[in-house]
Amino acid sequence: MKLKAEIIAIGTEILLGDIVNTNASYIARGLALLGIDTFHQQVVGDNPARVKQAFEEAYRHANLIITSGGLGPTEDDLSKEMGAEYFGVPLRMDEIAKNHIAGYMVRRGRAITDNNWKQAMLPEGCIPLYNDNGTAPGFILSKDDKILIMLPGPPSEIVPMFDGQVIPYLRSLSEDIMISRTLHICGMGESAVEDKLHDEMIAMSNPTLAPYAKEGIVDLRITAKAKSEEECREMIRPVEDHIREMFGDLVFGADEETLTDAVLKLLRQMDLTVSAAESTCGGLIADRFVRQSGTSDRFMGSITAYSNRSKVWLLGVKEETLEKHGAVSEETAIEMATGAAEAFQTGAAVAETGIAEKTDSSKPSGMVCVAVKVGDRVESDTYYFSRRRNSNRELAAVYALNFLRRILLQVKDEQSQNS
Amino acid sequence: MKLKAEIIAIGTEILLGDIVNTNASYIARGLALLGIDTFHQQVVGDNPARVKQAFEEAYRHANLIITSGGLGPTEDDLSKEMGAEYFGVPLRMDEIAKNHIAGYMVRRGRAITDNNWKQAMLPEGCIPLYNDNGTAPGFILSKDDKILIMLPGPPSEIVPMFDGQVIPYLRSLSEDIMISRTLHICGMGESAVEDKLHDEMIAMSNPTLAPYAKEGIVDLRITAKAKSEEECREMIRPVEDHIREMFGDLVFGADEETLTDAVLKLLRQMDLTVSAAESTCGGLIADRFVRQSGTSDRFMGSITAYSNRSKVWLLGVKEETLEKHGAVSEETAIEMATGAAEAFQTGAAVAETGIAEKTDSSKPSGMVCVAVKVGDRVESDTYYFSRRRNSNRELAAVYALNFLRRILLQVKDEQSQNS
Repeated sequence: MKLKAEIIAIGTEILLGDIVNTNASYIARGLALLGIDTFHQQVVGDNPARVKQAFEEAYRHANLIITSGGLGPTEDDLSKEMGAEYFGVPLRMDEIAKNHIAGYMVRRGRAITDNNWKQAMLPEGCIPLYNDNGTAPGFILSKDDKILIMLPGPPSEIVPMFDGQVIPYLRSLSEDIMISRTLHICGMGESAVEDKLHDEMIAMSNPTLAPYAKEGIVDLRITAKAKSEEECREMIRPVEDHIREMFGDLVFGADEETLTDAVLKLLRQMDLTVSAAESTCGGLIADRFVRQSGTSDRFMGSITAYSNRSKVWLLGVKEETLEKHGAVSEETAIEMATGAAEAFQTGAAVAETGIAEKTDSSKPSGMVCVAVKVGDRVESDTYYFSRRRNSNRELAAVYALNFLRRILLQVKDEQSQNS
Repeated sequence: MKLKAEIIAIGTEILLGDIVNTNASYIARGLALLGIDTFHQQVVGDNPARVKQAFEEAYRHANLIITSGGLGPTEDDLSKEMGAEYFGVPLRMDEIAKNHIAGYMVRRGRAITDNNWKQAMLPEGCIPLYNDNGTAPGFILSKDDKILIMLPGPPSEIVPMFDGQVIPYLRSLSEDIMISRTLHICGMGESAVEDKLHDEMIAMSNPTLAPYAKEGIVDLRITAKAKSEEECREMIRPVEDHIREMFGDLVFGADEETLTDAVLKLLRQMDLTVSAAESTCGGLIADRFVRQSGTSDRFMGSITAYSNRSKVWLLGVKEETLEKHGAVSEETAIEMATGAAEAFQTGAAVAETGIAEKTDSSKPSGMVCVAVKVGDRVESDTYYFSRRRNSNRELAAVYALNFLRRILLQVKDEQSQNS
């Protein structure tokens, strides 16, 4: 059967605006990747009558309902009961769910209350979705061409349950499978990327090509639909090759690979360590390295020199450089990069100095100068961003890291040509 | 009349999961603050039939509908037409809206197309909501105890329109007004704060008291309902005084004031500058200062010393301290703070060294040591967090900053007692 989905988030916190409904967008994106249409979403409070009404309204247009939240342990949490009632089945104690709950609580040294056992009650005939990250199991209930999938509310619980158990189930319902591959581009704006691709994009139906932009990075998602994974991969390959040819070294990676991963890979291949010098980025370059596990073999550290004096004292920027060219100049950025490489004794260094927002300066808001030092080679560049303060700062960190990546790539290519 | 609201977001990007529905939570929160109940939310695509159906479903339970999105300039954007049709009124060209659009486009040097004029068409008899941040005006339509408020989709347009025009309109419908004041607490977990407050919280109906936790900070929102703002403020004052007495210096500010603001205020009062030394925070302490405008008179910079060697070279941490106590110890944190104060020549410094996630170390994941130096005084503390890598890092930055604030406060109090 052709699936038409509706997503229902259950939770008073969402209705009060205390939390943002990220679960709905996570589920929606997963469904879109599977090729399942969603035409409507709802949010209701933890109220049995309204939950039931939401089910009734949803099944008027859809045959697959996915809910998040409302599976809590208290007496008030009756959404599961409403689901079972709608399908005309009773709740039964699920012994495996009970063991999961007991295990979860014991591992955390918490006492088990009677309320917890209520969470182990599941609708008769359902497919249980056991929860390794919380106490509430989810479940799949299916009858007369209607499917109900109820999932817990906390993102740390729903995400692994959806990815690990719901997606495989939904895949199993379709004869075709869909596979996506996402290429990441940095160094060109979204509209420029779209302009370059335009003809290809509109002409393609399988595989499809869709662009998404976020924080200075444009993702191109290629999605193929076919009978087997192998077939999908074969359909994706020529499109990927074509895009890589078109955008050259602006493509820094695919799927889970981050910009930082791409930089780290080059540093490892070239046996280099790296450090940073920051001004208006104020720690965001360091954060790009430290937020990932396993970067401490390459990333030695960063100096945020927010005052001119600290640029001089700690990074060895010359007073006359600051006077002649200003703190926001490629000349200053170059001396900052050199200073960082010196201070941290690293083979590579990246530096940034910019203006995050309108000031008295004669230089424009959003102007960012970056410099990279790799061995003896020093390169610099200037970018102009036009967002708000902290978006400009984020973009500056991403562009600085991307500039580092491109210079590393060039140096590596030259080395391999010379050897 | 008693208002019952329903929020409808119109946009295919939300149904595809490409963007998160932050508009709904923004509107929901605003309504909650006004004391207007919302029992249901919907999301629909840019499809006239489904938009109309969403209106019909919503007015079955609610008398106030607020929509976001669907007011674009193209032929496909027909949500406004559906709204006018539902209320049985035609669309008319609004000359002021037309001027707004022309002005907006001219300021940006963009060409005006016929499609833009379509955006200046508004339902007859509506209250227009002119848009200074985009081309699409919003509007309020009201008839037979039903209100429809349609707003544009981009957050940069809807937020000022909602705050500046919709909230005053909704306030004018109520005889009572509601005023809130939010106190910020750092240094105590959400459940501990709630336990301490429990009796007060449940007993209160006007003003009400509601806690919200985010990234190591617990907000307590006091909301009063009365005939005048003055009356509301008088009802809030004793509750605020009581909370401040109960939590002492854990309360760092109110309303818009951030933790960084509180630190900066003390630094200015005490005529001190500040610097930081970071390890697993990796720039997040620096970011707390640099993300705000106007901090460069106090914040000089930060050194992220991610390797042991850089802790020794750049911050002067002793080799024997690292050997004897380890990199994650209060002893190391103290030497890092001292090193930062020395390197940046600041009167105050804050340092952090911790373990963001499970490693081979004998010390537990989430353990974070912080130290603060203010003049000659040096203090240190250790915290244990139990979240994931980057949440632990965020919490560490917040707790380090809060520790700095508390030591500054103590030093200031001692100084004023001695003088």
